[in-house]
This record gives sequence, C-alpha cells and structure tokens, in this order.
Amino acid sequence: MARSPSGESLLTRAVRILEAFDADTPVLTVTEISRRAKLPLATAARLVDEMVRHGLLRRDARRTVRIGVRLWELAQRASPTLGLREAAMPFMEDVQAVVGHSTQLGVLDGSDVLFVERLSSPGAVINLTRIAGRIPLHASSGGLVLLAHADPALQERVIAQPLRALTDETITDPKALRAKLAEVREQGHALCAGHIHPDATGVAVPVRGRAGQVIAALGLVVPNDGQAWASIPLLRAAARGISRALASPRTAGGSTAAPATE
Amino acid sequence: MARSPSGESLLTRAVRILEAFDADTPVLTVTEISRRAKLPLATAARLVDEMVRHGLLRRDARRTVRIGVRLWELAQRASPTLGLREAAMPFMEDVQAVVGHSTQLGVLDGSDVLFVERLSSPGAVINLTRIAGRIPLHASSGGLVLLAHADPALQERVIAQPLRALTDETITDPKALRAKLAEVREQGHALCAGHIHPDATGVAVPVRGRAGQVIAALGLVVPNDGQAWASIPLLRAAARGISRALASPRTAGGSTAAPATE
Repeated sequence: MARSPSGESLLTRAVRILEAFDADTPVLTVTEISRRAKLPLATAARLVDEMVRHGLLRRDARRTVRIGVRLWELAQRASPTLGLREAAMPFMEDVQAVVGHSTQLGVLDGSDVLFVERLSSPGAVINLTRIAGRIPLHASSGGLVLLAHADPALQERVIAQPLRALTDETITDPKALRAKLAEVREQGHALCAGHIHPDATGVAVPVRGRAGQVIAALGLVVPNDGQAWASIPLLRAAARGISRALASPRTAGGSTAAPATE
Repeated sequence: MARSPSGESLLTRAVRILEAFDADTPVLTVTEISRRAKLPLATAARLVDEMVRHGLLRRDARRTVRIGVRLWELAQRASPTLGLREAAMPFMEDVQAVVGHSTQLGVLDGSDVLFVERLSSPGAVINLTRIAGRIPLHASSGGLVLLAHADPALQERVIAQPLRALTDETITDPKALRAKLAEVREQGHALCAGHIHPDATGVAVPVRGRAGQVIAALGLVVPNDGQAWASIPLLRAAARGISRALASPRTAGGSTAAPATE
C-alpha cells in the first residue's frame, strides 16, 4: 500500500479524517480537520479534496466540510446492522407507542454498547444515547445485558479496567459489577436506576439470534420513579418478536439485509 | 496521491470496493469483490485486508466480507442527513401510526431521489424504496416534488434524458413530465397512481427549510384504490411540523445533528 514519509497509509489518514467528525461537530474547516486528524495542513487539504471528489466528504458554500451523502449511502445500504434494525423497528415502534419514552437497540462493539437504532418522542425523559452513539458496557442497562452474555474473556477485561462513574449510582466496584452480571443473567433483564443520569432509569433485555446467542440489547430509558420494572414484560415480548422476525426467511442469515419484497 | 500503475488512486479503488456492496448483496467473497470492483484479485485482496484492519470492512468466519460496523458508525454519527431525519422522525411516526402504510423521506441527489428515512409496517402495500435506496426523479412522487422545485437546469437535464418506464403509468413523455411538474408546483403535492408498481400509489409533499427552499419530500406509499388524496392534508401538516422542528434552536443550521440534551 502507498505510504507517506511517516509510513502511514493513505487509507489510515482518510479514516483519521472521517474520525474527526461526530454528532457534535458534523461540520469542520480544513484547518480543524488537520488539527483533529493530526495531519499537516497541506496533507489534510489534499486528502479532503480527493475525498470530496469521491463524495466521501462534501464542501459547503462557506468552504466548510461535512460527511458526504455518498459515504452515508454506501455505509447505510449494506449496513452490517440493517437486517437487525429492519427486523426490530416495528417492535420498537410498538414499545415506543405504548411507553412513550426512548426505545433503543444496542450491539456489542469492543468494550462499548453501540446504539444502532433509537426512537424517541417530545417530552421523553433525558437520554444520552444517540443512533451510532456509544456508552461503556458497565454503565448502561443495555451494556450490562450484552456484557453479561459476552465471552468470559471480555467480561474479565472490562471488570479489570477502571470503571468510570457517570453518576453516584454507576457501578464502579469490580465485585459489584460481577454480582450485577450474575443477576442480569439470572433475571433476564438489567435495570439501572440513575446509573447514567439521576433522572433516568435504563432497563434492557437480551435479543437472541437463531442459535440462542445474545446479539443485541433492547432497552428503554424511563423516568427514575421506581416504575421501570413494569415495562419488562413488554420489552421481553418485543425482544422475542425481533428474534422471530430475524429468523424468518425474509431476513434469514442477514443475507437480505433489507427485505426485497415489500 | 499515491497511484497504481493504472493511474488510479488508492482511494478510488477503496470506494469501488465499497460500491460493490448493496442491500441485495451485503456479503461478498474477495473474488466477487474483485469482479464487481473491476480490480485484479491480488489488488482486491490486499486492499480488503487493509480495509478490514481499519474496520471499514469486516471478515466473517466463512471468510466472506461485509461493510464494517466502524464505517457505518463513522458515516452515521456525522451523517449529513441526521438533523433532517431526527427532526422528521416523530412526525413520520405519527403519519405512520395513522395511515399504517410506508412513510418515507427523500432528498435530491444527482438525478435520483435518495430515501434517507422510511417507516413501514407488516401488511403495508408493496413499496420498492429502502433507506439509502434510490429511484429516478421522474418515476416517484417524492422525486417529482423535488424535481418540481429544483434548479431549472437540473429539470431540463432530467427532461432531456431517456425517461425509463417502471410501469405503463410512469411518465416517460418529456411534455407530460413538464406539465406534471407545473401541476406539482401549483397543487403543492405529487400524486402518482401506479407509476412504480400497479398496486401502489405514491403521494408526496415538499418539506421546506428556513428560507422556504424545498429540502426534502415527505411521502406515503398507499394502495392504488383512488383514496390517496385523503392523506394529503395529513402529509402537509407533518411537513410543516418537520420544517418547524428544523428551525428550532435545538437543531438550528444542522450544526447539532443530534440534539445533545434528550
């Protein structure tokens, strides 16, 4: 592969440029990109030009730069999570319609839960997750569900890491985390009152694939008023529905990410 | 930029590899990638390896390749359409709950309508659109709304192109298309009975940005039973709601693609 004098490939530098953007900063100048991506200004400018030509980035009238609709389209149309999201969406809408707060679907990625879908409504209780947002596994109800059913090696790695507190309620003690994971496995759900924000309770259940393995966590963020437990049967029924939809021939094996026949 | 013997940059080849994937074929072997991307097998294999290392692609147990969750995340979290989709989602859910068929949001890209969001339900009438799917502007109700309000140069370019028929009802005559665009501007909506599929009617209205410019089309796909007109007031009200949500300080100017405070 072609490399710069520093030995870094063009692709590495292009990825660093993409990583400079996020939900809080979807629009950047080339100078900001060069600083965030730690690339010389001339290198950043040249690479941004080429990425704009391919539609991976887009330049606005004011010469600011954002992610191009072409990159979004390429990533989205063959999205690794599309089959799961399409299967889950009708069930998430039903939960959302009944409960009225945020309904979300997360998958395990590294030592984070990555939220791949989310429905909310005006007036929903405070919720720090976003589509394509991440939260450390130990801190959220969805993360605890995924961690509780993850490879033991990953569990040990997470338990051994420093466990950052988001509120006074976040589990930061390794022993308490171990006990919580056992509880989540036994009860079939995770309930976290105020672990991420004092006003919110997260509640999540596992979504299982065909072989019974846990492939996602379906969760709600509801007010921290002691009533979250009442949503658990609804979440469990919806998670079963998602598993059934995933197993149906239309989305079987993830090979038809979006059903072809609607 | 580093170039291959053929003069093609690494980035061009990487984009061609990403383009090899789509909703019908989210999983490919390296041999299939090499054929679809028109790259020598050794080149494709080397580039796939590097893209896998960066998480742009992912290799499965069976050595097949798919789009990596990291690429999806990078494209999604700073998505150029995220502000619009977040603003539109609650209104789309309301329309969807009332009408029960597919509700979709499209933007202009090139000479296509690119669908950036879509809600459906079991039992909805046949609908060929997908999230991140494309349909030629002249063929769909959303496309006609976008084309009717587009730059006159683009209108002339589309009218001059061969207009492909998807059904006997698709508008393929340049004069008829010109008349339809005038009608769409005058009536404030596009209604297309059977233009894409004999069983479906598309109906769409413009979504306007702060300066009154048309930035998207909000549409429905309903049964082709002559009743689609009844949904137009609902769609128009929802489109107004989306414009208002886009103009609110929380999503102003697209600079906060996802509101940070829910």
